[in-house]
This record gives sequence, C-alpha cells and structure tokens, in this order.
Amino acid sequence: MEFFDVATTQRSIRRLKPDPIPETALRQIMDTALCAPSGGNRQGWSFVVIRDASTRARIGEIYRECWGELMRTPYYAGVSEAPSDSREGKMLASARHLSEHLAEAPVLVVACIATDGAKPTLTTGASIYPAIQNLMLAARALGIGSCITTIHRYRDGQLKALLGIPPEVETAAVVPLGSPLGKFGRPPRRPLGEVAFGDRWGQGFE
Amino acid sequence: MEFFDVATTQRSIRRLKPDPIPETALRQIMDTALCAPSGGNRQGWSFVVIRDASTRARIGEIYRECWGELMRTPYYAGVSEAPSDSREGKMLASARHLSEHLAEAPVLVVACIATDGAKPTLTTGASIYPAIQNLMLAARALGIGSCITTIHRYRDGQLKALLGIPPEVETAAVVPLGSPLGKFGRPPRRPLGEVAFGDRWGQGFE
Repeated sequence: MEFFDVATTQRSIRRLKPDPIPETALRQIMDTALCAPSGGNRQGWSFVVIRDASTRARIGEIYRECWGELMRTPYYAGVSEAPSDSREGKMLASARHLSEHLAEAPVLVVACIATDGAKPTLTTGASIYPAIQNLMLAARALGIGSCITTIHRYRDGQLKALLGIPPEVETAAVVPLGSPLGKFGRPPRRPLGEVAFGDRWGQGFE
Repeated sequence: MEFFDVATTQRSIRRLKPDPIPETALRQIMDTALCAPSGGNRQGWSFVVIRDASTRARIGEIYRECWGELMRTPYYAGVSEAPSDSREGKMLASARHLSEHLAEAPVLVVACIATDGAKPTLTTGASIYPAIQNLMLAARALGIGSCITTIHRYRDGQLKALLGIPPEVETAAVVPLGSPLGKFGRPPRRPLGEVAFGDRWGQGFE
C-alpha cells in the first residue's frame, strides 16, 4: 500500500476477530517496529508477543479491572454520560468492547522500555512510542487492526509478574492485533489550523 | 512510495540542507501527524512550526547549550570516547553536527502536549510521540529528512519563553525538517530475536 493511504487511514480498531494472523505478517510488523528511532539509538525496547491463549485470558482479566479503575476517574465518569451516538459515546462503546474482549485478539503485544532504574519521564516515551506507532502502521498496511492502550498501568505490577518482566523495565503499552471487524478510514481529528502554530504559540500556521 | 519502503528506510537525518521545503509538503507532513492516535482521542497536541530565521537562530543557540549539558552526562561522556569510525562514534558526530547546525534546517517543529497541569509521565508520551513518528515518516515519504531530539528539555524554560508556550503545556520534542545531505536507508538495529519475546519475558519469539 501507498504510504499516505496507510498513515491517514490507521484508526484505532478495537473490535477484532479471534482468527489468528499470519506468522509472516506478525514478523513483518515487528520488524517495522524496530526501524523506529530511539534516544541515542539505544534501543532499550522489548516486546512480549503473546499468542498463548491462557496468558491472553489472564491479561484480559487484569485489563478489565483496569477499565473499572479508568471509569472511576473524573474525566471518564464525565465521558460515560455522553450520548451513545456522539463521537465520545461511540469511542467509549468501542473502548468498552475492547475491555471485555481484549483476550480474544489473537496477538497481544506488550511494549516495554528499559530505564536503567531511573524514573521514567515524558521523554522516555520518545524511545518506545515511535516503535509502537510503526507497529500499528505496519499492521494497517497488511490489513490487520490494532490500537494502543496504556490503562494496563493501573495493574502494572500484576502484568509484569504474569509476564516475568524485570522491575527495571517499564511497560509502555498493550497493543492487540487481529483482523478488523470494523473498517479502516480517516480518523476523526481536530483541523490542522487548531493545533498548528506558525513561528510562535497562538499565531496562525495557515 | 510503498509503506514498507518508507518505514524501513526512515533513518535519523541530522545533516540537512538549508533550502526551503515546499509548503504543500509541509502541510501534508503536518496533516499526517494528526492522523496518529492519542489517549482517548483527546488530541492534546500542538505543533509550533518555525520557519522564521531569527527564531530558528535563537533555538539553535539554546540547543547548543543543551548539547553541552548532554555531553557532561556520564553516558555521553563515555560515548564521546568511542572511536570515530564505530557506530556510536558516527552517531555522535552526526548528532554533534546537528547541535552546531540546527538553526540551518529550514523548518523546526516543536511538538507539545497539554497535561492539564498534571505532571507528565511515561504514558503522556503515548499521546504525542506517535504523531511525531507519523510526521517523520511522512517527511521521509516525500524525500525530506528529519530526526527527533528531546535534549531541548535541558533549557525547556528558555524555549517555552521564546515561543510563548503556556506553562501547562509540555514540549515533547524538536524535529528539524529539510532536504537530506545524507541518504535514507535501513537504520542499524539490534536483531528482532534479541528484543522480542514469545508469550513471556526471556522466551524466544522466533
């Protein structure tokens, strides 16, 4: 597929079929992840690629608890009152579906970043989220759906214990992969003129 | 360009020509950035796109000071003793070039993320670095070089004051854009077998 056709139609696909995805596709997706940059090219990333059904089931249970925590935060308590046919309502319904069906995705990728014991900061993310974005774009290029979720952090200790992830390694995201039940397409976004400034904050870019 | 040809040859281009890049290309690059996901689709991102030469010059001065700070950290003090023809030595020479010539890039993008006053964490990055990766991939698809740098954070207050960025907004990265002096190509990376695990940390993926 042409690059811009991929990148401008990679929306979060939270409804996935349980069918396995081809091993060759999974390898190509992971290979593309590794082509992303990381700070000083240190590549402190690791990816736990989970296909085992019982491990996925346990992650699904942990994730459902995380969803419960998220819904108790003030922001999401508010969002959950949005009309079901509003953009926020639809997004929430789709995210809720994921919270109930995460384990059914044939592959779950837990993306990690080593911090050498230092407390992670915003810019720690510069060494792992570009790789995750590459992973999701590669999936989309192959017709495989994905989304990124970080709410596993509510039960981070449980997830790390389950997967044997060392203490000095941070879990940055969980990415389910699978054939999409929904359709790819341009995601709903604020217009460029609202979020880009020219030369200085507040000045028009356009 | 075909998606995988773009994503597997997007290496950090730190040597850039001063020639302007086409406005249509810049708009397409920014538009692609916005197609990336963000937590809860909140799109708390902002991008200050700097073409003004005097603003770029001032950012270049600030950035040079940041480079000095970086070189005083234990890790980079060690890297700076690597042989100049080693992989680390070459990377450092290229990064040093950028530190001396950042202002010559025709466009600097300062990517920001709103945190609503909360302290940013690792996962704050999940709402801005995917967009930055999209931006750099789109640039590569159009033959425009870029790289991501976060060391501006050593002088974050100065950068924010210069650009008028509000206190509750975090600067996540500076991305120079310009025609590449070097060549695109597959970046040097650790093999997949070293960084991907199957089902559980430490188990082979392959």
